[in-house]
Amino acid sequence: MSKNIFFERKGPFLLNKLFNSINVGKKIKIFDIKPLDEANIDDLTFLDSTNYVEAAKYTKALFCLTTERLKDYLPKKCKAIIVKSVLFELCNVTRKFYPNADIDNLDQSLKTPKKKKFPTVKFGNNVLMGKNCKIGKNTLIGNYSIIEQNVLIGDNCVIGSHVVLRNSQIENNVVIQDGCKIGLKGFGFIPLNNKNLRFPHIGKVILKNNTEIGSNCTIDRGSIGDTIIGKNTFLDNQVHVAHNVKIGDNCMIAGQVGFAGSSIIGNNVSIGGQAGVSGHLKIGNNVKIGGGSGVVNNLPDGSIVMGYPAVPLKEFLRKSKK
Amino acid sequence: MSKNIFFERKGPFLLNKLFNSINVGKKIKIFDIKPLDEANIDDLTFLDSTNYVEAAKYTKALFCLTTERLKDYLPKKCKAIIVKSVLFELCNVTRKFYPNADIDNLDQSLKTPKKKKFPTVKFGNNVLMGKNCKIGKNTLIGNYSIIEQNVLIGDNCVIGSHVVLRNSQIENNVVIQDGCKIGLKGFGFIPLNNKNLRFPHIGKVILKNNTEIGSNCTIDRGSIGDTIIGKNTFLDNQVHVAHNVKIGDNCMIAGQVGFAGSSIIGNNVSIGGQAGVSGHLKIGNNVKIGGGSGVVNNLPDGSIVMGYPAVPLKEFLRKSKK
Amino acid sequence: MSKNIFFERKGPFLLNKLFNSINVGKKIKIFDIKPLDEANIDDLTFLDSTNYVEAAKYTKALFCLTTERLKDYLPKKCKAIIVKSVLFELCNVTRKFYPNADIDNLDQSLKTPKKKKFPTVKFGNNVLMGKNCKIGKNTLIGNYSIIEQNVLIGDNCVIGSHVVLRNSQIENNVVIQDGCKIGLKGFGFIPLNNKNLRFPHIGKVILKNNTEIGSNCTIDRGSIGDTIIGKNTFLDNQVHVAHNVKIGDNCMIAGQVGFAGSSIIGNNVSIGGQAGVSGHLKIGNNVKIGGGSGVVNNLPDGSIVMGYPAVPLKEFLRKSKK
Repeated sequence: MSKNIFFERKGPFLLNKLFNSINVGKKIKIFDIKPLDEANIDDLTFLDSTNYVEAAKYTKALFCLTTERLKDYLPKKCKAIIVKSVLFELCNVTRKFYPNADIDNLDQSLKTPKKKKFPTVKFGNNVLMGKNCKIGKNTLIGNYSIIEQNVLIGDNCVIGSHVVLRNSQIENNVVIQDGCKIGLKGFGFIPLNNKNLRFPHIGKVILKNNTEIGSNCTIDRGSIGDTIIGKNTFLDNQVHVAHNVKIGDNCMIAGQVGFAGSSIIGNNVSIGGQAGVSGHLKIGNNVKIGGGSGVVNNLPDGSIVMGYPAVPLKEFLRKSKK
Repeated sequence: MSKNIFFERKGPFLLNKLFNSINVGKKIKIFDIKPLDEANIDDLTFLDSTNYVEAAKYTKALFCLTTERLKDYLPKKCKAIIVKSVLFELCNVTRKFYPNADIDNLDQSLKTPKKKKFPTVKFGNNVLMGKNCKIGKNTLIGNYSIIEQNVLIGDNCVIGSHVVLRNSQIENNVVIQDGCKIGLKGFGFIPLNNKNLRFPHIGKVILKNNTEIGSNCTIDRGSIGDTIIGKNTFLDNQVHVAHNVKIGDNCMIAGQVGFAGSSIIGNNVSIGGQAGVSGHLKIGNNVKIGGGSGVVNNLPDGSIVMGYPAVPLKEFLRKSKK
Repeated sequence: MSKNIFFERKGPFLLNKLFNSINVGKKIKIFDIKPLDEANIDDLTFLDSTNYVEAAKYTKALFCLTTERLKDYLPKKCKAIIVKSVLFELCNVTRKFYPNADIDNLDQSLKTPKKKKFPTVKFGNNVLMGKNCKIGKNTLIGNYSIIEQNVLIGDNCVIGSHVVLRNSQIENNVVIQDGCKIGLKGFGFIPLNNKNLRFPHIGKVILKNNTEIGSNCTIDRGSIGDTIIGKNTFLDNQVHVAHNVKIGDNCMIAGQVGFAGSSIIGNNVSIGGQAGVSGHLKIGNNVKIGGGSGVVNNLPDGSIVMGYPAVPLKEFLRKSKK
């Protein structure tokens, strides 16, 4: 059971205290909330869409928030906790475990880093760093940048100026250009009249080895689960990556592309400027998405698509000629 | 007559000094320039499009810049001042009243705020604040953020790092994430060869209770009139809101959406990522606009649209299948 | 032969040391790498697309990297150096001349500017400036902005807060709003599995007289050659201008527009919000591009286009009605 280094977790809680109406043995303790594929036997998980039926089959969790319609996709050993709105109940229960993850509070541990502690790191002017940060060898950190508590940065990274890193793990040889805001809470909430209920964002952002992030990009951390940019994947300027998105290795993402939440992108994918990928999609490996496209469906390996909605390139060209 | 706390206003000016060619009594004094619905009897107003015919009916102003074609939409008590280009004349006259509103000059009153003056406010490092700012209880302000003179911020707000607030009024429980630039002058000018004439921006930005603004958003202040985000409306990252836009309550605006100037959006509107709304439109209540759409026409209450140009969803799906 | 003030150039190199396999006289020295139209007789140039055939005719260079397919477009006095991938070889050879231009290293010369040295310049708080910067009369520079070494800024400019200027030349009366990142290296690399090879960016950004750049824009410097914004051209917020783009005079570029690399835009061009212009295109003078359009082809003078892909307005309207 991996520890969440960014948020203090409350609990464990008894399952029947979390859900009064649920009829389960009194002594079942729940330790954490996890996605289907990461949950262990003492975690609570959730299934709210047929998109995740495959992951459901193999979950280790013994209890799963879900709906009447989806409950039969769960394996036998996993008991369904049937609710009307999975997200609403998940939001409430996650707020009990993580009461401070729905708003990005001020990191009051920020200070000027002590250069003696990081002898090979080159700091620009007025860098701020929180407690428990680790920074690898020969990394550069630009001016007015903010590295919040518990952030990990690897070796030989180049972090620009006016950057914010929060709840993030940056591997080696990563370049982050000026003005990026990485690891902030995402756009997740239960819409309620007059006062939306914010979804806790207990995940993190992981930028793997050799990634590059262009200037003024925003990459939100995961709500439950992480946001991940794979090895040697390069993002151009002003790209927006929403919570829980997972991008594979060796991808090329051009300027102003946007990813809605929870989509999974394969390896060797190239995406042209200003294209958008809707939420909860699965894009295969070796896919090419033309600039300006709007992808609203899953795409198998090797697809070449363009248009809004995105269709195979041949079809797009045929339609354009009409 | 509400006072403009952000700009010093010159005048009053005699109407026949403002417009030499206009034949009116010598002693009519004009005190301010206001939109049709905000103008009082001693203000000058303007009508430059049939979009505003309804507001024209009820204006209290006695004098209105307009064109030969539009003059008959004015009520009898309101005298038309006929010009060829309303915007050009409006620009020139507004520059007389507000000579410093066309460029965002350096706020030379900025200083480190005195924490004693704001005992319940938590400041990050290196916050700068101008004169006459008011900040409510328990508000947080992040690192390297700049609160310019006369800005008002309510209670329990969370302002991120690297934020600029200028000419803005922020109500209570508002969240503004890192990197937002709010209240700067908008993209308004009279195109002239070699030297465009900048339109003064004398309005402000108002963020109402419980709004949330994602990271790296830009919200320009109004030119004449204000830019307003309604209660409990949430904007995702990298959203651009141009001058004079008014968004209603309880709206959800996804990442990278853009609003051109002066559009009015109703309540309970949801807009998918990367959609764009053209200028001077009226979008009703309970409207849903699909991601990537380009809205170029007014939309009645309850519309569900998608596409570029945006059309009713059914029509979009039919067209996409062709 | 103009000097590159932003990067130290190595060399000259003997041509047959740069390309072992090339059979040329041993003593030919190459001094620099330049685009076809800027190259002199002792520079190496390159031709990698039929888009540049016209420029090829008039190049002064005596040696040109190109392909078997393109070699016949060169003038007789210019010897083709035939390679399989022009960009790959160009990248490698440019890295020899400019070994430090592929990553934006920390400018370690940054300091608080001495106000005595710039008696008419008004500085905000915490401005940082590198060595050898020149700033004209009566220019304003906002808070937390960073002017890196060798940057030139003209008279009467207004530079906002949280701005970064690197490898840039800013002429007179230029306005740059808050949060802009200008002159950073662009999105250029040779995709290689596990470790992309970054293309050096030895060019600069030139903002000509009376330009205006909205908040949170990104303008990348040229790779080989410059990125240029022409006189009196205004950009709205969140515009992205990729490397080597050249925009003419008196253009109006609305919010969130994106330009892919190396496109050339004429004078008096207006582009609506969120439109995109693909790479390596030539857009004529007096062109109007509707909001949200995706331009994928060259456009002659006076074109009025809209759509994705952009087509003449009449055709767009006809198609939309289907």
